[in-house]
Amino acid sequence: MTVVLAVDAGGTSTRAVVVDADGRCLGIARRGGGNPISSGPEIAAAALVGSADAALAAAGVSPGAVAVVLLAVAGAGSPSHRDALTERLTASGLTARPVFASDLLATFCSGTHLPDGYALIGGTGAAAIRVEGGRQVAVADGLGWLLGDEGSGFAIGREVARAALADLDGRGPATALTTALRARLDVPADVAGRQAAEAITRSLYAALPVRLADLAVLAFDAAGDPVADAIVASAAEDLATALRAVTSADVAGPIVVGGGVLSQGRALRHAVLTAYAGQGDVPEAVVVRDGTVGTAVLALCHAGVTVDERVFAALTASVAAEPEAAPPAGPR
Amino acid sequence: MTVVLAVDAGGTSTRAVVVDADGRCLGIARRGGGNPISSGPEIAAAALVGSADAALAAAGVSPGAVAVVLLAVAGAGSPSHRDALTERLTASGLTARPVFASDLLATFCSGTHLPDGYALIGGTGAAAIRVEGGRQVAVADGLGWLLGDEGSGFAIGREVARAALADLDGRGPATALTTALRARLDVPADVAGRQAAEAITRSLYAALPVRLADLAVLAFDAAGDPVADAIVASAAEDLATALRAVTSADVAGPIVVGGGVLSQGRALRHAVLTAYAGQGDVPEAVVVRDGTVGTAVLALCHAGVTVDERVFAALTASVAAEPEAAPPAGPR
Repeated sequence: MTVVLAVDAGGTSTRAVVVDADGRCLGIARRGGGNPISSGPEIAAAALVGSADAALAAAGVSPGAVAVVLLAVAGAGSPSHRDALTERLTASGLTARPVFASDLLATFCSGTHLPDGYALIGGTGAAAIRVEGGRQVAVADGLGWLLGDEGSGFAIGREVARAALADLDGRGPATALTTALRARLDVPADVAGRQAAEAITRSLYAALPVRLADLAVLAFDAAGDPVADAIVASAAEDLATALRAVTSADVAGPIVVGGGVLSQGRALRHAVLTAYAGQGDVPEAVVVRDGTVGTAVLALCHAGVTVDERVFAALTASVAAEPEAAPPAGPR
Repeated sequence: MTVVLAVDAGGTSTRAVVVDADGRCLGIARRGGGNPISSGPEIAAAALVGSADAALAAAGVSPGAVAVVLLAVAGAGSPSHRDALTERLTASGLTARPVFASDLLATFCSGTHLPDGYALIGGTGAAAIRVEGGRQVAVADGLGWLLGDEGSGFAIGREVARAALADLDGRGPATALTTALRARLDVPADVAGRQAAEAITRSLYAALPVRLADLAVLAFDAAGDPVADAIVASAAEDLATALRAVTSADVAGPIVVGGGVLSQGRALRHAVLTAYAGQGDVPEAVVVRDGTVGTAVLALCHAGVTVDERVFAALTASVAAEPEAAPPAGPR
């Protein structure tokens, strides 16, 4: 029986899954962020290889029995990152040479077995793609936290921090985000105004920039606060703009939405789809939690397995049902 | 005769000057960026100590003869950065223990010998201060490229890059900034659309984030382009907001403007002052190129010298007249 290993390396977590040709999930494991740009190449590679090893162990499958190894990484990975991953996976005993795929395509394939359609990802980063004949033929944004990822968790989290700092600094309006950010960063109650702004700044600069994405949730939790609502509305407009940029009148198909921010934020999702529709009917979207099922779909396709509605349904159900192998205790 | 050494560590360049109690500049030298946050602490310290050594050599003054060493660094420097600088300067033979001062106050003191007023800095970063009795009593922004520095060269440069990428990606309007950025980064003519966006992204991520400030000039050069004009107008509004945040009805005095972006950009400066004035009369501003004169003023004050109009005028004229000791050839 054909067995494949698929790894979805996201900005926040990396998930590996071992599945067979009937779409049965034999083992699954999770590790920390596996995006080489946001987490650094070494930490990203360790998360990826660690999750692969753990999923194989959970499945009780020997590395040599794996027919296809498919890795979904941001931008399908740089050549040097691909080489480093290939070397480390080979050292783990995997004899199949890894195939690299777009993490965005994996998200699309997590939501549908159909060959045409769109995916919109709003997680730590943000991007939209158009898929035709099972291939990713157009992409918008996904250009990283410094220059792109408009409407992403990073972008929302950065705006949360900026709004709170402007409030404390006398440059911007009062907002509930300030209280929320102070609480989150444990700024003492007797530290006020400019001193609080400087304490928050020191705390946030001590972490990787991409960790600002963790603050996005404060904007959603503060719904009703005008500053928070404006941040979310602007993000929704940005995400709709990315989706519009890849839309072709000739291509109909499902809109798959994924990424932590979009999959968990119903209000944001509704705002995005409403902005996207403009004067037209607001479309339905297929919501996926991550790209795990999609990486398995792509791995099976590479193994020559036809992923029809039945296999896709089995895959979706069994990946959801299988308990994830917990990461080892201590720092990941 | 009292001789002092003053160093102004900016994001783009670091300038050291040796002056006497009559405001005569005896030697001056320049090195690369000396901001520990944007350039990294090691490179920043090397620029600072290198410029100090070179200025003393140019002046023909022995380190042991220096009465006061005053260093103006962003936020007056972290404790660990201060300790590292003190150790390195002592190793250079300086017996006077360094005094640390705000780079923002140094900018103010470069423009006036009066004790009260305001400074607005728009360079790689951006900040505004209020000065009373020669002391910096209020500050707005200056919170760094990731979380603050609204309206700074970094902020403008980042918007230039984002606008060009949105254009190439189909997410934003066509803009002259795209052509300008392609030319600046040597993107080949046959690389178009999304491929050009990815080439630009790779090129810009290969440098430190703060180097995006170098792209600000593209926005000014593209004056007349609606996208470029909107970026500059938004920066002007942000800078005016910072200045308003520190304005007190009780404190009248000159507005000193400095930093590369504001001192060189007449149109931006006018837009900032117009936005600041609102319905009122547009104020005059004293434009300074950098904080070199101001660090010398602060150093002389620490040495017990009264910097009156005469000494201040002598200092300004002699610093401007003295040729800068060139940095050594090769990488700095």
